[in-house]
Amino acid sequence: MRNLTMLTDFYELTMMNGYLETGLDKKEAVFDLFYRGGLEISYAISCGLSQAIDYINNLHFEDEDIEYLKSLNLFGEKFLKKLKNFKFTGDIYAMREGEVIFPMEPILTVKAPLFEAQLVETALLNIINHQTLIASKAARISETAKGVVSEFGLRRAQGPDAGIYGARAAVIGGCAMTSNVLACQMFDLKVSGTHAHSWIMSFPDELSAFRAYAKLYPNSCILLIDTYDTLKSGIVNAIKIFDEMKAEGKKPIAVRLDSGDLAYLSKEVRKLLDKAGHTDIKIFASGDIDENILMSLNAQNAAIDSYGIGTKLITSYTNPALGGVYKLAAIEEDGKLIPKLKVSDTPQKITNPGFKTVYRIFNNENKTVADLITLFNEEIDTSAPLTIFHPEYTWKRMTIENYTVKKLHVPVFLNGKQVYNSPSVTEIAKYCKQSREEFYEEYRRLAYPHIYKVDLSDNLYNLKNELLTKKY
Amino acid sequence: MRNLTMLTDFYELTMMNGYLETGLDKKEAVFDLFYRGGLEISYAISCGLSQAIDYINNLHFEDEDIEYLKSLNLFGEKFLKKLKNFKFTGDIYAMREGEVIFPMEPILTVKAPLFEAQLVETALLNIINHQTLIASKAARISETAKGVVSEFGLRRAQGPDAGIYGARAAVIGGCAMTSNVLACQMFDLKVSGTHAHSWIMSFPDELSAFRAYAKLYPNSCILLIDTYDTLKSGIVNAIKIFDEMKAEGKKPIAVRLDSGDLAYLSKEVRKLLDKAGHTDIKIFASGDIDENILMSLNAQNAAIDSYGIGTKLITSYTNPALGGVYKLAAIEEDGKLIPKLKVSDTPQKITNPGFKTVYRIFNNENKTVADLITLFNEEIDTSAPLTIFHPEYTWKRMTIENYTVKKLHVPVFLNGKQVYNSPSVTEIAKYCKQSREEFYEEYRRLAYPHIYKVDLSDNLYNLKNELLTKKY
Repeated sequence: MRNLTMLTDFYELTMMNGYLETGLDKKEAVFDLFYRGGLEISYAISCGLSQAIDYINNLHFEDEDIEYLKSLNLFGEKFLKKLKNFKFTGDIYAMREGEVIFPMEPILTVKAPLFEAQLVETALLNIINHQTLIASKAARISETAKGVVSEFGLRRAQGPDAGIYGARAAVIGGCAMTSNVLACQMFDLKVSGTHAHSWIMSFPDELSAFRAYAKLYPNSCILLIDTYDTLKSGIVNAIKIFDEMKAEGKKPIAVRLDSGDLAYLSKEVRKLLDKAGHTDIKIFASGDIDENILMSLNAQNAAIDSYGIGTKLITSYTNPALGGVYKLAAIEEDGKLIPKLKVSDTPQKITNPGFKTVYRIFNNENKTVADLITLFNEEIDTSAPLTIFHPEYTWKRMTIENYTVKKLHVPVFLNGKQVYNSPSVTEIAKYCKQSREEFYEEYRRLAYPHIYKVDLSDNLYNLKNELLTKKY
Repeated sequence: MRNLTMLTDFYELTMMNGYLETGLDKKEAVFDLFYRGGLEISYAISCGLSQAIDYINNLHFEDEDIEYLKSLNLFGEKFLKKLKNFKFTGDIYAMREGEVIFPMEPILTVKAPLFEAQLVETALLNIINHQTLIASKAARISETAKGVVSEFGLRRAQGPDAGIYGARAAVIGGCAMTSNVLACQMFDLKVSGTHAHSWIMSFPDELSAFRAYAKLYPNSCILLIDTYDTLKSGIVNAIKIFDEMKAEGKKPIAVRLDSGDLAYLSKEVRKLLDKAGHTDIKIFASGDIDENILMSLNAQNAAIDSYGIGTKLITSYTNPALGGVYKLAAIEEDGKLIPKLKVSDTPQKITNPGFKTVYRIFNNENKTVADLITLFNEEIDTSAPLTIFHPEYTWKRMTIENYTVKKLHVPVFLNGKQVYNSPSVTEIAKYCKQSREEFYEEYRRLAYPHIYKVDLSDNLYNLKNELLTKKY
């Protein structure tokens, strides 16, 4: 397991040293990791918890790390010694991976001595921001694509990890498979891949390249038909090969288009395949596709059965960062947790104070109605009607009857000990699909979705207002 | 060193198996890795070679990798055995890191048995695409920023590697330092960092938080002044602290702005600092800055001395992928390297055939005039005038006299043995600065830059035309 302990912003260390020197280091603090919005999709898919768990379990400073920090001539022996013995001893509560989540909901809450809670800020944000971003983009693409989507972006990912964990997140968000071999090996994913133009160019001609490939992969044969000319050469040769294969009882699968006008070419190729009796052969398309192109292809009734999506997915091209933040929500004073709030001129940037949790409310069709952020110890009595209200426009009220609730947070670490095991990626992907399907499609559509309600409990709302009207 | 051998697209393996089965595996092949354009800046900064070298040196399949591939039930024993003994035995030529490069110029050329050259495609693209993208974005930001820039993006980077190697690339492209501790430790970079809002919020009030911080870091003190109210509270308290510090002979450094109207606030803060006699105190700004905001801040004469740039740099936000490709340029037939070319309806997508190299031509002011892509063995006789011409508009011609040339490629691997050692990141950053300064600023400006000439030698031009007019 990789040691990412030093993967942190320098200011976490200068602050930790400061907390130690001023005697604040052992004070219990609560930090929430959440996003404020800014995604192109109305919801996000929580992702990355498994790697966050690995990170926390593996937190330790090696001797060479201590030596390095010492060489900066900024830290004293007391601090360096404390780092040498560093262990995470706190609690972490988090959204399950694959959960549909919304702005302002804590994706992860850390309750730990300030010294520890401060260190983990940067790496947790890095891991959760990245994977949540890609899983959410994959969900957005999945809402749109008619047919199976494979993740194909490794070569354009922002470094090895972006490829590996991006593939993981893409499968959680809705992709069926990935071309990334290492990701498949690490997370037991379904692998996808055919051949490149260089395969065709390594043979004297396209037909012999196809024939050689067909011979090697009689039952998984997908032929890339755009190396020279899709309609004049590629599909003509592919049909010859499929004729030969079927005459020998083999089962070719598909042709692949990787360039040109995919709507037009797919329909022409479909006609030619059908005319030659190859109605069972699928058409697989790739080449700079994203959800907008998918919508256009859908509108034109493109004859495409499945997609390989690379750059636009693996980088979340149109929105390549999730602006997740990690904000102090409470800190111990005189042995008691005192809620804290960060004010801002921008109302949306004001944080929710206190140690909190999140409930999802379901109607009697088992569809979601709203989420409710509450203080940690609040329980919801489902035998009584529940009135919720908009946290800004408080006259927007709704009373719910016949409902059930689900606590969205699970305890992940308690007193530094891991108490939650991540399911497999396949199980998480299944959970994500269910989680999305619990929402009416009005909430999930890409264009002008219905706004899902995320309200605050009375107690939390009152606490927030009280702190806002107090002088700081 | 991390083993990234399995970090590959699946089709590389299915093709390698195919080359082995059809007897093409040992044929010498030449592949060029290059980009076709699409960046927001007229040039790119070559970056990532050092990690590419590590990758090549460490290429080997572990037993568990072989077992995993076997479990896919697609590959035979012959192939798996060949993987088990895999070693890279070829040649690699590449641009030095930090070099200013242009579309269509091979950043890296692999000349190796087809079996080996195919495997390395995905990882080389992943590494070079990412770091070249970020170094180029950092150069773009450096062309704009008045003052020192620190890289601050780890929490928004696309996973750990994107943070680590992104910081490396950012420093190569022009950043002075980074907040990423692990990257500083790994690459001996200058570390940057202050404190967060949570530091302020962990104390009863802002003044005592500042005072505690100032006591800890008497000679590196930068105070973040926007937690509550920049002008009414932050700068007022900071000035009190600076007064106290200076009375004790300490040397505070700066205040930091992280939100709000940076142009307005910086000018107001400057006035207040100056009025209080703190003309030596610098103003450091951060908060979603990119090169467009920098231009606006410059135009408004913002009183900012240095910048921390996060999300927009570390993800290359407005353009988060470099579309680098890896294309077959030649392959052995009957013991001879036969140039190959990939045709396309889009003329810009037609590749340059053959085993090639790149020269840069300098005038007698030691400024660049043009680049010339030639066949590998071509030499340029600088005692004779040199006529170059545009590869599409061939009537655009220029004859150069009094010039010198520099070969941009260095041999990196010969027969599988590393023959080039990467300089330190600091040295590469210095080389990059020199490389950029060799270009007249008309080529480097962001808005409507002068187009830099990248021409083909007569021999290469003729070869390309010959192949284009041939039937495939």
